[in-house]
Amino acid sequence: MRRFVFTKADGRKLLLYAHTGRPGPPLPDRLRGHPGPVHLRRHPLLDEWVIYAPERQERTYHPPAGACPFCPGGEVPFAEFEIAVLENRFPALREDPGEPPRLPVVAAPARGRAEVVIYTPEHEGSLATLPQDRRRLLARVWNDRYRELLALPEVRYVFPFENRGEAVGVTLAHPHGQIYAYPFVPPIPQREARAFAERAVLAELWPDLEAYRVAARPGFLAFVPPFARYPYEVWVAPEAPHPGPWSFSDAELDAFADLLGEVVARLDALFERPMPYVMAFHAAPKGIERFHFHVEFQPRLRAKDRLKYLAGTELGAGAFTADVLPEAAARALRGVRP
Amino acid sequence: MRRFVFTKADGRKLLLYAHTGRPGPPLPDRLRGHPGPVHLRRHPLLDEWVIYAPERQERTYHPPAGACPFCPGGEVPFAEFEIAVLENRFPALREDPGEPPRLPVVAAPARGRAEVVIYTPEHEGSLATLPQDRRRLLARVWNDRYRELLALPEVRYVFPFENRGEAVGVTLAHPHGQIYAYPFVPPIPQREARAFAERAVLAELWPDLEAYRVAARPGFLAFVPPFARYPYEVWVAPEAPHPGPWSFSDAELDAFADLLGEVVARLDALFERPMPYVMAFHAAPKGIERFHFHVEFQPRLRAKDRLKYLAGTELGAGAFTADVLPEAAARALRGVRP
Repeated sequence: MRRFVFTKADGRKLLLYAHTGRPGPPLPDRLRGHPGPVHLRRHPLLDEWVIYAPERQERTYHPPAGACPFCPGGEVPFAEFEIAVLENRFPALREDPGEPPRLPVVAAPARGRAEVVIYTPEHEGSLATLPQDRRRLLARVWNDRYRELLALPEVRYVFPFENRGEAVGVTLAHPHGQIYAYPFVPPIPQREARAFAERAVLAELWPDLEAYRVAARPGFLAFVPPFARYPYEVWVAPEAPHPGPWSFSDAELDAFADLLGEVVARLDALFERPMPYVMAFHAAPKGIERFHFHVEFQPRLRAKDRLKYLAGTELGAGAFTADVLPEAAARALRGVRP
Repeated sequence: MRRFVFTKADGRKLLLYAHTGRPGPPLPDRLRGHPGPVHLRRHPLLDEWVIYAPERQERTYHPPAGACPFCPGGEVPFAEFEIAVLENRFPALREDPGEPPRLPVVAAPARGRAEVVIYTPEHEGSLATLPQDRRRLLARVWNDRYRELLALPEVRYVFPFENRGEAVGVTLAHPHGQIYAYPFVPPIPQREARAFAERAVLAELWPDLEAYRVAARPGFLAFVPPFARYPYEVWVAPEAPHPGPWSFSDAELDAFADLLGEVVARLDALFERPMPYVMAFHAAPKGIERFHFHVEFQPRLRAKDRLKYLAGTELGAGAFTADVLPEAAARALRGVRP
């Protein structure tokens, strides 16, 4: 993998990743970032940080056709590239967040990073339709970002994710993901780290997961967790516990990337339409070794024409209700022809 | 308040509440419940229960005009009534949940209750437009349900809530709320109880909340919490800590009901359209005294034409990002003419 580092006209860092080639001819670099002050406030009842980024109110919303910021000549001022990573134009976490206002609750600067990962220069596509070598390159890009962002002294947790589909609020269709590097360990990985510190939960469960299998590659399984909270929820995990994908071998990275692609293909085949989802990487918080890295897909359709909404019981009380049994979801996803 | 107890044709309990009158003439009782087996599974990483209710896949979805199940002659077989409470046709929690299947994770019966609260026989309206005496009656209905449901030996937590608007997934427009009575304490009240056991968080913050005020009644404040996670989030709380509204005096219940109505009116006035929201009651878990009851409104619009979506950072990592500063939200909601 080759990596080329640029500084954009507005000072943001741009990274281009390629198998072998160099980026294509340069184009004008016109899009400017809107970094506003960002800060954290402590929610005293839930004991968690909330990120405030008011500048994001102005973020890009359904750009007109032909004005996609992720197509060549938008955020990436090159006519050709393979995978690009750059700082979010409307970052929720920043290297220079500014000082928080004086408040009656505990506040702190939202120091960190918010990056966008552009999977391809093509406007159409998905993790499922990327060429195999691009998907495998992407797995290496995620690892490069893990390594660089985890090395920042202020960063405590690095979180690659992908929001896909209008049902999840995505207004930019171009295939892309994001990475947040937080100055704190967010609540969900925190709870997971606590669980893994007590028991090797996933490893213990492994022999029982065959019945929940969706797809597999050597050393890796895609399965519906027997305790899924979302309809057609799928996890992708290595059989051997790893704190993150950064400790995968080259062959493991390839298997991991291939399996992610197959999961998306199966989710898309399920209702014969692109499945809206949140894909979330669950790696260990910095400095924690006892963890079982996995990727969680939270799909948003519970039927071909019906969205799963989170509402009162989930968001008010924190108790998820699931309409689709994990066993049935696994059977359905195993049965489709991707 | 008068309360009339009926058993519907399918065996479900129906409660009618009225200031003074009796329910109007009876009508045929045709709608049947679909109680399927329901069970709980333990999420071993998040250490929380997930409720499985597969029968709910078949639940009512955008009924045709004239077929509203909450209008008289639907679920309530009376031509006239004030407020009705009945068991959900597609309950996620039941008195007779059946036995959970054999699973590789910890499972338990989903024993509890899922009730619907029909605020009015009128198909149109909201908490804001109900007549004042109906809203005050509703506050007493909630308390009646708290008392009865908390007395059930299997119930550990009672949670009245309202999902409002299609953006929250509501397909029945008729003004109504719901009540879940869980056999466990859900994660959010659990964390709140932990916080209140340590410190009187809201009472300590009270002197600073004036700057965050949205509206008030004697002894009650509606405010945007300085640590809001949602745009235009509003909390309604009594100044004196109460474990739940069941310990309010009659005058306090009236003030509380009036203030809830004003909050909804202000949320609706903000963008001159009905605000989609989740309204969640946060009372103490059964047997806990050190708690500060409050109601949280989680609105779904961040601008007139823009929804706030929860996505990767919120649902994958548990870290909320907010675009609207609480100070600005409070100013805006204080400034509208409801």
